[in-house]
Amino acid sequence: MNRIASNIFEHIPDEISNELFENIVSAENIRIERIVSKGHDSPESGWYDQDEHEWVIVLKGEAEIQFENQTTVRLASGSHLNIPAHMRHKVSWTDPDTETIWLAVYYK
Amino acid sequence: MNRIASNIFEHIPDEISNELFENIVSAENIRIERIVSKGHDSPESGWYDQDEHEWVIVLKGEAEIQFENQTTVRLASGSHLNIPAHMRHKVSWTDPDTETIWLAVYYK
Repeated sequence: MNRIASNIFEHIPDEISNELFENIVSAENIRIERIVSKGHDSPESGWYDQDEHEWVIVLKGEAEIQFENQTTVRLASGSHLNIPAHMRHKVSWTDPDTETIWLAVYYK
Repeated sequence: MNRIASNIFEHIPDEISNELFENIVSAENIRIERIVSKGHDSPESGWYDQDEHEWVIVLKGEAEIQFENQTTVRLASGSHLNIPAHMRHKVSWTDPDTETIWLAVYYK
């Protein structure tokens, strides 16, 4: 185990041409991921349709998540949301002027 | 499902005489909890000795976690740490001047 704490706000590349996905914890039943966006929307394929539940929080920046029923939820720093498995959704907008840092917990 | 996002930095009581623990997600294999401390250390019983792994991040404020081998880790906003099950630890200090907001993910 690494006893030195890491910092979620550090080691952000200067240029983010694609969204950046990094595993923080990967275990049998959960995965914790940091996502860094800057003006990106995703996925290109249209919708996320995931086998796992996802709890997501925006820690910096701003974003919008859209659901298939057209509901759109605006997320600022500290906003969090639980997305059940197979609830189709997409990131419809992220702030183009600053990095948006997300923490996502995927669980069964 | 509640489509309105909650905010982790909101609904903090003015007076926090005891540490505040609130479940955000509670599922079969994980539990996500918000903890608000203000000058508290814990637990009173000496050490946390948990059956589950814990990934913890400080989102606001400052804190120190001490491990049984005397290693102490200082945590500021954004600092995160993974604590394996049964690794005995305690919160040895939190900032007395402001709320420290933690997010803890307990998992099997």
